[in-house]
Amino acid sequence: MLKPPVAIVMGSQSDWPTMRLAAETLENLEVEYEARIVSAHRTPERMVDFATNARAEGVKVIIAGAGGAAHLPGMIAAMTPLPVFGVPVRSKALSGMDSLYSIVQMPGGIPVGTLAIGEPGAINAALLAAAVLALSDDDLADRLDAHRARQTQSVPQFPSDLE
Amino acid sequence: MLKPPVAIVMGSQSDWPTMRLAAETLENLEVEYEARIVSAHRTPERMVDFATNARAEGVKVIIAGAGGAAHLPGMIAAMTPLPVFGVPVRSKALSGMDSLYSIVQMPGGIPVGTLAIGEPGAINAALLAAAVLALSDDDLADRLDAHRARQTQSVPQFPSDLE
Amino acid sequence: MLKPPVAIVMGSQSDWPTMRLAAETLENLEVEYEARIVSAHRTPERMVDFATNARAEGVKVIIAGAGGAAHLPGMIAAMTPLPVFGVPVRSKALSGMDSLYSIVQMPGGIPVGTLAIGEPGAINAALLAAAVLALSDDDLADRLDAHRARQTQSVPQFPSDLE
Amino acid sequence: MLKPPVAIVMGSQSDWPTMRLAAETLENLEVEYEARIVSAHRTPERMVDFATNARAEGVKVIIAGAGGAAHLPGMIAAMTPLPVFGVPVRSKALSGMDSLYSIVQMPGGIPVGTLAIGEPGAINAALLAAAVLALSDDDLADRLDAHRARQTQSVPQFPSDLE
Amino acid sequence: MLKPPVAIVMGSQSDWPTMRLAAETLENLEVEYEARIVSAHRTPERMVDFATNARAEGVKVIIAGAGGAAHLPGMIAAMTPLPVFGVPVRSKALSGMDSLYSIVQMPGGIPVGTLAIGEPGAINAALLAAAVLALSDDDLADRLDAHRARQTQSVPQFPSDLE
Amino acid sequence: MLKPPVAIVMGSQSDWPTMRLAAETLENLEVEYEARIVSAHRTPERMVDFATNARAEGVKVIIAGAGGAAHLPGMIAAMTPLPVFGVPVRSKALSGMDSLYSIVQMPGGIPVGTLAIGEPGAINAALLAAAVLALSDDDLADRLDAHRARQTQSVPQFPSDLE
Amino acid sequence: MLKPPVAIVMGSQSDWPTMRLAAETLENLEVEYEARIVSAHRTPERMVDFATNARAEGVKVIIAGAGGAAHLPGMIAAMTPLPVFGVPVRSKALSGMDSLYSIVQMPGGIPVGTLAIGEPGAINAALLAAAVLALSDDDLADRLDAHRARQTQSVPQFPSDLE
Amino acid sequence: MLKPPVAIVMGSQSDWPTMRLAAETLENLEVEYEARIVSAHRTPERMVDFATNARAEGVKVIIAGAGGAAHLPGMIAAMTPLPVFGVPVRSKALSGMDSLYSIVQMPGGIPVGTLAIGEPGAINAALLAAAVLALSDDDLADRLDAHRARQTQSVPQFPSDLE
Repeated sequence: MLKPPVAIVMGSQSDWPTMRLAAETLENLEVEYEARIVSAHRTPERMVDFATNARAEGVKVIIAGAGGAAHLPGMIAAMTPLPVFGVPVRSKALSGMDSLYSIVQMPGGIPVGTLAIGEPGAINAALLAAAVLALSDDDLADRLDAHRARQTQSVPQFPSDLE
Repeated sequence: MLKPPVAIVMGSQSDWPTMRLAAETLENLEVEYEARIVSAHRTPERMVDFATNARAEGVKVIIAGAGGAAHLPGMIAAMTPLPVFGVPVRSKALSGMDSLYSIVQMPGGIPVGTLAIGEPGAINAALLAAAVLALSDDDLADRLDAHRARQTQSVPQFPSDLE
Repeated sequence: MLKPPVAIVMGSQSDWPTMRLAAETLENLEVEYEARIVSAHRTPERMVDFATNARAEGVKVIIAGAGGAAHLPGMIAAMTPLPVFGVPVRSKALSGMDSLYSIVQMPGGIPVGTLAIGEPGAINAALLAAAVLALSDDDLADRLDAHRARQTQSVPQFPSDLE
Repeated sequence: MLKPPVAIVMGSQSDWPTMRLAAETLENLEVEYEARIVSAHRTPERMVDFATNARAEGVKVIIAGAGGAAHLPGMIAAMTPLPVFGVPVRSKALSGMDSLYSIVQMPGGIPVGTLAIGEPGAINAALLAAAVLALSDDDLADRLDAHRARQTQSVPQFPSDLE
Repeated sequence: MLKPPVAIVMGSQSDWPTMRLAAETLENLEVEYEARIVSAHRTPERMVDFATNARAEGVKVIIAGAGGAAHLPGMIAAMTPLPVFGVPVRSKALSGMDSLYSIVQMPGGIPVGTLAIGEPGAINAALLAAAVLALSDDDLADRLDAHRARQTQSVPQFPSDLE
Repeated sequence: MLKPPVAIVMGSQSDWPTMRLAAETLENLEVEYEARIVSAHRTPERMVDFATNARAEGVKVIIAGAGGAAHLPGMIAAMTPLPVFGVPVRSKALSGMDSLYSIVQMPGGIPVGTLAIGEPGAINAALLAAAVLALSDDDLADRLDAHRARQTQSVPQFPSDLE
Repeated sequence: MLKPPVAIVMGSQSDWPTMRLAAETLENLEVEYEARIVSAHRTPERMVDFATNARAEGVKVIIAGAGGAAHLPGMIAAMTPLPVFGVPVRSKALSGMDSLYSIVQMPGGIPVGTLAIGEPGAINAALLAAAVLALSDDDLADRLDAHRARQTQSVPQFPSDLE
Repeated sequence: MLKPPVAIVMGSQSDWPTMRLAAETLENLEVEYEARIVSAHRTPERMVDFATNARAEGVKVIIAGAGGAAHLPGMIAAMTPLPVFGVPVRSKALSGMDSLYSIVQMPGGIPVGTLAIGEPGAINAALLAAAVLALSDDDLADRLDAHRARQTQSVPQFPSDLE
């Protein structure tokens, strides 16, 4: 049986409050996904299994979030030809700067499309995954257009003191 | 007439020595592309034209490279639903750290998949674009698999003193 | 009908607690202004409209605040010959360092006069706008001199333990 | 006798290769200026004289460049109500990051409009000074418009391998 | 009438919670001092007066604390031959990294002996001032030795869970 | 009488909440240790005594934690041939970046194996010490294997909203 | 047949000029080693094979060097209980700061003892590996002591102008 | 026999091109000094001897330069009550940022007056040492005043294109 087109993986349960925003964004766009915990460091075999089988199981795009010495997105990208989008989760000491460098500074040959540190990055990873899937799914393209239009319309003209 | 599926845009001629590697990588994978200079700051109208028309003209994926206060990738992403991949070009004073932050730290709502600073990032933007296109192009998927296999095979077992 | 001489624009409602200090500082100096939300990323058309029409509508100086990959000040500067002063709003993960780099590191050709990260920057953007307007407004120059004199006199001679 | 409307000051002769670009940019725009060496640290009296007298001598805008613990722009701004634009000159060890922080992070009350580190910052300080002066000088406004139009037209459509 | 041998100056009342630790440390060592607010930016004349008269008034060592674009220590050092010790006060956005660079990166010719960011720096500025004065005050040298001995003895052998 | 094989030393009582995790990790692995406060700066003689005698007293591996200008791990490594593992304790102003650089950037000739900033680093220093001791202690190797297996098994398959 | 006790692995041939210093240091100490290229990203299967088999093949200590998003040391540590020492190789854009963060900021549970960026780190990884092996090899302990003694004796008393 | 009043110590011969500027500055001011190599890491006993005996041997002020994980200034300060001024020598990978943090971020209790990274810091350490000695040496105070006056007079009024 095939997996949903988007896989959201993260290095630990503690990444979920961030990565949940990717899941919710996909839900809003009616894009199916599966969210799993796959730790590069604590469950390397699970990671190898996941990454090497993802394409055959029907996954189209992988969203991977991790913090600190964040190896998960890059290692998955090393083991699958699918597009991988990385979310640097904010870390305690260095506030995600370590996560960012560990994900974005991949050597030539193995790409990870990296999003912003933390929540905005999780949201955007989902939007980018949807944009990729929308290239061959006109209905999704319409939903994404509508989402962007609503987003534009929701920006007020003037700032408000009521907070 | 339709444009090629990949558009490579960059903020200035000085970005070309970096972005050329994206072009060459696409050529190796037999993916058609068009490379153009589109400056967010010096040619904002050209940028608006490019970004708002890209989808209608048949572009599928946009690769955008820029340095310093690098606004090009994010501004294009603001004006097209297509996937945008950003390459932070190395800058003189801050070595691309400014380029990286300006590209990757996008707010939730407008994604830019960001690659590494400089040449590796340009190569990887092309590989990521190809991975996206390969989702609906089995021949390209085969060529990408072959490229990755050759890459793996080209890694020697032992380091060599002959340099 | 003409707009006030100073326009304060910001990328989102969440920038207002910072940018409000620019508004208050202008009020103290009896300088008229209009404050608006103009998002480079979520409302690019609104931004283009604002920036390309500002001079014709009578705006003299633009204060633009934004956070993260802060493209608003630079993009406005790309589309108007008016002086643009940028305020890097403090961001969650990188505390405004990303905002600062995204605003200050503009390429040669398109200037943005950048102020400090956060509240001090918002206050100073207003003071700098006033200093510019005061060049051709002697009454404002007098008010600005008085403001600076009061500021000097308000500094106590000795630190106080009562806080 | 009155001074020219723009004063370019810098902390040492070693800043001139950078600040010269501000001078050349003003010359291209036919804006008169005077360039002087004024060291906050080695010639504090000269700095006090310069800053406290600048307005009375007819200076309208001050461009100040300095590197390292760059105190010149901020100290001048503390002693004159004129608009001060600061250029962080690239430093040897920290590549201008120290210059940038020392200039841009002014406390609320004393503004310095800060430009990019190094040469682009020097060019842009001149353009920003011209934009300020152009508010009350229509001929200069025309020249600045023309400069910006030429700049836009000079951007080639396609990157060139001939370097 | 002569001033005490140590002057503690700071840029604003908000620096006092940090700089108070310098005062308390001097009190513990029975070193007389005067603490004053002297803002480089808001009270430049007061600063010039203070710095140019300090030696004649009997001051031997100056401790100067400031935050952000912290110009006070360096500007005082520019106007007095006395030893100046600088304390980078922790700042809101950049946590004192801006303060540190603005104080420590002085150009060759005008020294500021810089201490750690924040409270430890304030304590150590006092200890360093005392060490300087102790070179010609044997009683103070004895008190400083005793202080250091007590400090050594106060370090427990084993960590304790009782906090 | 011989000391336990692992010595945990730290610069001050305030490091214990971090370093306690090293102690607890060793206890879980049934590795004996002694935890002591040894300040490079406040008790240099104690440090010299500890470091120069450690090998003769039967210590096999030293774990040293310190924050800020963290000299303890490197100075101990300078005075003993035993393996030294350093833990950069999170500091107030710079969040442990100063601790990290002070520990990891040792010159060629005197190694300190450095772990992550803060709690993860303390845990890992203990695990690394155990891994070293396990090279000649098969029972410990078995316990370490079991610990790693439990760690792997404890990673859930799916993220949970219950927090 | 058993492997030598130390394995030196690196992500690419371009790391060899750095990692060669680890090899030379081991040779000086008469410690046998094998140096191999194992790329986490381009040869993930080779890495899995290497890491999972290393202990059974007789390896005692692993030295792993990599640059940029340097995942090799951490991924090997995830798949072997042996002590792993990581060398952050200097990278082009970020001078090894990315390599350092990617290696040192491992999550609690999987330790990598990290050495300095670049050549000193490679030398020290070898010395640390030797220190570990010397715990159960008295001859090596003697050679290491002699190496350290020679190192101490080679430091001249006075600086020399002859360079 | 007494030592000269200023001791210049540095961690290695490679620091001499930087620290030589401290020596030359002292020579210009006719202040006697002794320059020695004292490595905290490679010659810890020499360092202990130097630091614990310096006061008794007549040293008044210590200038200590070191790079990377620069422990020399802080460790000397831990073992002598004399004023210690630290010079962060520029390092290869991190350009002296590691040296700076390792020297300046001392904990409360043990002060090191830290100067700028590299050559300016070496010059200024000498000037600060002279300022300290000048407190009880009127002739030196006069020479220092003359030095500062010459320095002020040597600053040209206008920048020169002849370089």
